[in-house]
Amino acid sequence: MSSEPGFDAGAVRVRLPDGLDTPVTVIDIDVMEANIRAMADAMTARGVTLRPHFKTPKMAQVARRQLAAGSPGVTCATIGEAEVLADAGIADVFIAYPLWPSAAKAARLRSLCERIELKVGVDSAAAAAAVGKALAGAGAQVLVEVDCGNRRTGAAPADAGPIAAAAAAAGLAVAGVFTHGGQGYAPGEARRRAARDEIAALDRAARSMAEHGLPARTVSAGSTPTAVLSARGVVTEERPGTYVFGDRQQAVIGACAPRDIAAVVAATVVSTAVPGQFVLDAGAKTLAKDRPSWLTGHGAIPGHPEAVITRLYDHHAVCELPAGARRPSPGDVVAVVPNHICPVINLAADVVVARAGAQVGRWTVDARLCSR
Amino acid sequence: MSSEPGFDAGAVRVRLPDGLDTPVTVIDIDVMEANIRAMADAMTARGVTLRPHFKTPKMAQVARRQLAAGSPGVTCATIGEAEVLADAGIADVFIAYPLWPSAAKAARLRSLCERIELKVGVDSAAAAAAVGKALAGAGAQVLVEVDCGNRRTGAAPADAGPIAAAAAAAGLAVAGVFTHGGQGYAPGEARRRAARDEIAALDRAARSMAEHGLPARTVSAGSTPTAVLSARGVVTEERPGTYVFGDRQQAVIGACAPRDIAAVVAATVVSTAVPGQFVLDAGAKTLAKDRPSWLTGHGAIPGHPEAVITRLYDHHAVCELPAGARRPSPGDVVAVVPNHICPVINLAADVVVARAGAQVGRWTVDARLCSR
Repeated sequence: MSSEPGFDAGAVRVRLPDGLDTPVTVIDIDVMEANIRAMADAMTARGVTLRPHFKTPKMAQVARRQLAAGSPGVTCATIGEAEVLADAGIADVFIAYPLWPSAAKAARLRSLCERIELKVGVDSAAAAAAVGKALAGAGAQVLVEVDCGNRRTGAAPADAGPIAAAAAAAGLAVAGVFTHGGQGYAPGEARRRAARDEIAALDRAARSMAEHGLPARTVSAGSTPTAVLSARGVVTEERPGTYVFGDRQQAVIGACAPRDIAAVVAATVVSTAVPGQFVLDAGAKTLAKDRPSWLTGHGAIPGHPEAVITRLYDHHAVCELPAGARRPSPGDVVAVVPNHICPVINLAADVVVARAGAQVGRWTVDARLCSR
Repeated sequence: MSSEPGFDAGAVRVRLPDGLDTPVTVIDIDVMEANIRAMADAMTARGVTLRPHFKTPKMAQVARRQLAAGSPGVTCATIGEAEVLADAGIADVFIAYPLWPSAAKAARLRSLCERIELKVGVDSAAAAAAVGKALAGAGAQVLVEVDCGNRRTGAAPADAGPIAAAAAAAGLAVAGVFTHGGQGYAPGEARRRAARDEIAALDRAARSMAEHGLPARTVSAGSTPTAVLSARGVVTEERPGTYVFGDRQQAVIGACAPRDIAAVVAATVVSTAVPGQFVLDAGAKTLAKDRPSWLTGHGAIPGHPEAVITRLYDHHAVCELPAGARRPSPGDVVAVVPNHICPVINLAADVVVARAGAQVGRWTVDARLCSR
């Protein structure tokens, strides 16, 4: 029932330590470190800088390992995440987001500029002017965001030059251009178009900057599905995040193998009172409700691959079983592979770190809830 | 476009203070206190005990006001929430959840029993025996959860007596029965059936307990849509939670009026680069992705009622506009009425408290992320 094409839940390697207080996210450190090495090696082989996105792990323990694997710095989405990174001694941070510097945010950004090498995004001449007013002389660099077809944020690629010129006129150093091929988050789409879309948009944007006399030293693309597909030559930097843990969505679209999934949620069966189903204590406040239309249910349960998580309440996951399927008993602890790992990490103060099914640590989610 | 039948977004009364650092949840304290009084008065008039659910506010500042309005205690969903309540000096707590007392949880529950008057749920004889083993002699009371048609957790009502007897045999004090008519969370359903379903199931369950020589002193129903519909005579206690703030879902199903909504998310327009839309900095990590099939989009924007939040990424809300609609400018701050307020409160460390558009405080979300 829940098996998606290409997703063999039985191949997931994370094993749960005994005696967990659930619900809790469990990270297999060996699988995670292999993911970190594999992405670093793939980018090194292509001569591309890997600037991993912090929005997925939100833990300094993970970011430090990514830097140790060769990355010069980290990507993040919010000023709050950048503050956590600065506190952790990570000195090169790109907030890959079109920031609007309100008075409160401008003060925080200026404070960050005194502590770290900071890069921020803009996607309009108005934002460039506003960021210039807030940060000129503070040492921040800006990158111009362009849209490669995801239709979320980002200017038209041909407008990158004028926006970069506005930033320069506002007293800012312009480092380059960036985009996000989010249209690659569906089966087949990264290979069919998203990786090419990113390159075409970035190529056009970099030429637009050059036409305005501003070289794009950094040409930055980024998403886990597209990172390893992007061709040599245009892109200088990739910003994938999810690859570090993987999740059900990435596995179903082929951006990771089920055996590369490094994070699961341990949950306890709390009720089998209603026939045909069992209920776990990991609800929407643990697993989050991310479910693209091409995924069935709110996560996969490797120990019960025929179960479908049909309903997710704040603290209940209702798992329906086909007739005749084996039903777990109240008190049983099962692993759930989340659809989307990023919001799951954000929903807990800490995670359990395991190696071969034995607990070896507990890591704080330093940037949990840092959404502003 | 986004207007749902019966939901006049323009009637929402929360006004945003100036200078907010977004995204941030803003509570109008006058509207909230009126909601607390109105529900307390409605329950008092019916002779029913109001035991408000803490899963919505998660703030001691709110729970204390609910107690001051006459409630003897609080409902919650997790041991972690109960620990926060105990720390706040709230001494009468019902964890309305079918707990499975693993070793870790049993120790936490025993510790709680030393600090507060604790009630917990069970929905099977096996759970009753397990809770008895963990807590017999510790002073906890149990209530038997029965299913009234929501098909989530809860035993068949006729089984309440045998389960209560198992609990008593395990050395536990049995306080009564409880249910949750979650099927009332859809337009018309609370009035059409859910409130009646709750009463019928509880009546049957209480009789089942009586048949086993165990009186059900507490007969507890609970949800915001059904609380004010439930008839006199059977129910002794109601456990609504969402009423304290209201949300778009409650307003659309008629369980609150738009003018009673006390909580909105303040968000900044960060991009208008893509035609036909604007993008807010409040994404899924702020608004959560709760969206029942009968709601269009991921929230309502009273200042732009024609906008539909069609896509929610971790830190972006894409708001689509019909042709000709007025589009806000980057830097503008707008209020968003969340579809479901409970996960929103859980996603921030604190909230801004306002009165008539002026900031009067900042409250910590004490039980944020307390999902175990």
